[in-house]
Amino acid sequence: MPDFNAITTDVSDGIFTLTLSRPDRLNAFTVGMMREMIAAFDLADADDAVRAVIVTGAGRAFCAGADLGAGGATFDYASGEGWNDVGSPIREDGSVDYSHPGVRDGGGMLSLRIFNCRKPVIGAINGPAVGIGVTMTLPMDFRLASDAARFGFVFARRGIVPETASSWFLPRLVGIGQALEWCYSGRVFNAEEALSGGLVRSLHAPEDLLPAARAFAQELTAESAPVSIALTRQMMWRMLGAGHPMEAHRLDSRAIWSRGASADAKEGVSSFLEKRAASYPDKVSTDTPHFAPWMDDPDYG
Amino acid sequence: MPDFNAITTDVSDGIFTLTLSRPDRLNAFTVGMMREMIAAFDLADADDAVRAVIVTGAGRAFCAGADLGAGGATFDYASGEGWNDVGSPIREDGSVDYSHPGVRDGGGMLSLRIFNCRKPVIGAINGPAVGIGVTMTLPMDFRLASDAARFGFVFARRGIVPETASSWFLPRLVGIGQALEWCYSGRVFNAEEALSGGLVRSLHAPEDLLPAARAFAQELTAESAPVSIALTRQMMWRMLGAGHPMEAHRLDSRAIWSRGASADAKEGVSSFLEKRAASYPDKVSTDTPHFAPWMDDPDYG
Amino acid sequence: MPDFNAITTDVSDGIFTLTLSRPDRLNAFTVGMMREMIAAFDLADADDAVRAVIVTGAGRAFCAGADLGAGGATFDYASGEGWNDVGSPIREDGSVDYSHPGVRDGGGMLSLRIFNCRKPVIGAINGPAVGIGVTMTLPMDFRLASDAARFGFVFARRGIVPETASSWFLPRLVGIGQALEWCYSGRVFNAEEALSGGLVRSLHAPEDLLPAARAFAQELTAESAPVSIALTRQMMWRMLGAGHPMEAHRLDSRAIWSRGASADAKEGVSSFLEKRAASYPDKVSTDTPHFAPWMDDPDYG
Repeated sequence: MPDFNAITTDVSDGIFTLTLSRPDRLNAFTVGMMREMIAAFDLADADDAVRAVIVTGAGRAFCAGADLGAGGATFDYASGEGWNDVGSPIREDGSVDYSHPGVRDGGGMLSLRIFNCRKPVIGAINGPAVGIGVTMTLPMDFRLASDAARFGFVFARRGIVPETASSWFLPRLVGIGQALEWCYSGRVFNAEEALSGGLVRSLHAPEDLLPAARAFAQELTAESAPVSIALTRQMMWRMLGAGHPMEAHRLDSRAIWSRGASADAKEGVSSFLEKRAASYPDKVSTDTPHFAPWMDDPDYG
Repeated sequence: MPDFNAITTDVSDGIFTLTLSRPDRLNAFTVGMMREMIAAFDLADADDAVRAVIVTGAGRAFCAGADLGAGGATFDYASGEGWNDVGSPIREDGSVDYSHPGVRDGGGMLSLRIFNCRKPVIGAINGPAVGIGVTMTLPMDFRLASDAARFGFVFARRGIVPETASSWFLPRLVGIGQALEWCYSGRVFNAEEALSGGLVRSLHAPEDLLPAARAFAQELTAESAPVSIALTRQMMWRMLGAGHPMEAHRLDSRAIWSRGASADAKEGVSSFLEKRAASYPDKVSTDTPHFAPWMDDPDYG
Repeated sequence: MPDFNAITTDVSDGIFTLTLSRPDRLNAFTVGMMREMIAAFDLADADDAVRAVIVTGAGRAFCAGADLGAGGATFDYASGEGWNDVGSPIREDGSVDYSHPGVRDGGGMLSLRIFNCRKPVIGAINGPAVGIGVTMTLPMDFRLASDAARFGFVFARRGIVPETASSWFLPRLVGIGQALEWCYSGRVFNAEEALSGGLVRSLHAPEDLLPAARAFAQELTAESAPVSIALTRQMMWRMLGAGHPMEAHRLDSRAIWSRGASADAKEGVSSFLEKRAASYPDKVSTDTPHFAPWMDDPDYG
């Protein structure tokens, strides 16, 4: 594993665990943490031994939001050094060229990386998840939470707006009314409200959270073909935004033709008919088919 | 009625009942069944006496999925004879041209036909609905189920992927998290879980299922104009994928101008003001207006 | 305030209350009411003292639907005088040119105006909300209802179709199945069903409805920056229709860069760190940034 500073990573039993690890700062988010998280997802996708990813936090918080160490200038990206290598979007007169490729939200870069992940992603929210601490969990497939978790879409109370592409994810996950209620008021709410509002899948005692997340990861992947799971994740998330079911038909026609002729399909059907456990030969790293334009997207794998 | 082999059909009390009928094979899906189901929906749409469609299964299953009689080669469409009349997508070197019009999932062809139906469609799921047995029900408007029903999005356990355009339908019906949970694990689940997960509308004792579906069909259509229902079905499903409410405004402006000047509207308002039952003169087959580009789509009617 | 006839308006405690006010006609909808409602939303958006909008009805109804005073010709827009200033879509031969800009549903013009509002919008549904009486509430952020409220998507029983861009809003708010069930049958249903079906956020005793709506408006806005709320509203609603989270990333990157450098952000973060109430200097009327193509849309503010 690379030498990470703001996170730690672990692989065991086929599960890649990414732990936000700045516990003295309640795992507050920094540009460095963003870069390390993206690198960790690259590792998880490339390692065929990894069947699922769990994201959690060290200490009592999941992630308290952006690190406010810079005070009132925290979100003033225009005056900062930026984190992109594409030059500055600041014009000579000091105004911002909003169409410049340097105008990118760092949370969104992480969010899109998670969106493109080829393994199931489970958020194990062990404590407060506030600001980007909660919006970073939205492109994860599932959010399991400790009873001690707290949530807050606090952006409007800081004079800013929801980021991390959350305007695409949140209303689809919890409905537009619930999304607006939480984002307008910016108040912090408890785990029960997150559950009843549809933000999290299940609640757990603090000590049971990680074991539950690991058991869930096993349940999701134990009997399923890894390439099937990788394609399913992309198909479902991408077609959630598609205009017409014909788009899904075009996509899954190619996918079913491709995987239907695979060694995995032969093994999947044969093992079922023979009432035995399957042993799928294909690997995500080498056997994922290529048949859709977005598969050429640099953001995709 | 045509001479169907894999299904039976019946029209009574304005309800077209399509029964999957290969009970000795648990109504396993075949290319022949697909073709017959599409033909049956054509009949239902063309018959103005038909106000609603119910799809159910003969015997103890609804549909156990693709017929696995071909074993490990079941889903190897590239090596099969195919069911399209557009030539072969297989290149001389044996590779598949995924952009060829012959690369089409048969389940998706059925799914899009149901999507384009002009009558309300009710799935009456009387027993196991697995693989395409469940994905074929997703473009139906409502799924009523027997307590004895079982469901499984088992694709990943067979080494393949969800098909039948289900990646468009399923996350919209049950949410992306629930959709992924069922599709990753591929496990079979019971009717209670289908209800709590939002997949089915209501549960019924086995002997009450068809009567409940028929009563529901009557409730939906008894006092409503057939052309209004036909347009409503298309407007709601299609705008579910639209990018901006302006698209709906363009569509329903034309629809309300067209139907607002109709004999149905005069009768609908007059009967309401006169507190009497309405008798709508317009027919779906001849009086459905033509004002949107998709109405020229060969897949539409 | 202008001299309205079909509505009354009031601003107090930062809340703009728009009351449908034709109580002798159960607040039935007319072209005049549409024009006045649009004008009222223009006023609410332009007034920086207004933090939220509440829409309610005078007397025992919220809005009983289109005024049926013209009887069977009520919805025959082609034969009427129209309300647009763009000429007539009727050809010399009497047929309708559906592509003509005069073919516009008046309810949809109101609906799109509400969609573009820069303040939170709360429907306080005090009684029957039928036809356009309910579809006009769909682009509002929240629907609170009296126990005495009744709802009906009665279009199919009048020989017409759902309008007011409701085919975009309704399936997103309550799911496609529930939307079709209500729209096919056209039956009137009670407040409990509206709550369980996801149409309304909460139920209240009749005398508690407006106080609850006002308290909710205060809760939503009390500690949040007005410009943040205005942008959040547009981002969430618009990205609900976007095809890919990259669209949200492009949008919120610009929004967060813009607002991150604002005086509001400095005050929001500083007040939080100093544990004091914030006093946001920026105003919606003058400080809302301009960075997205739809901000040039004439329908937008």
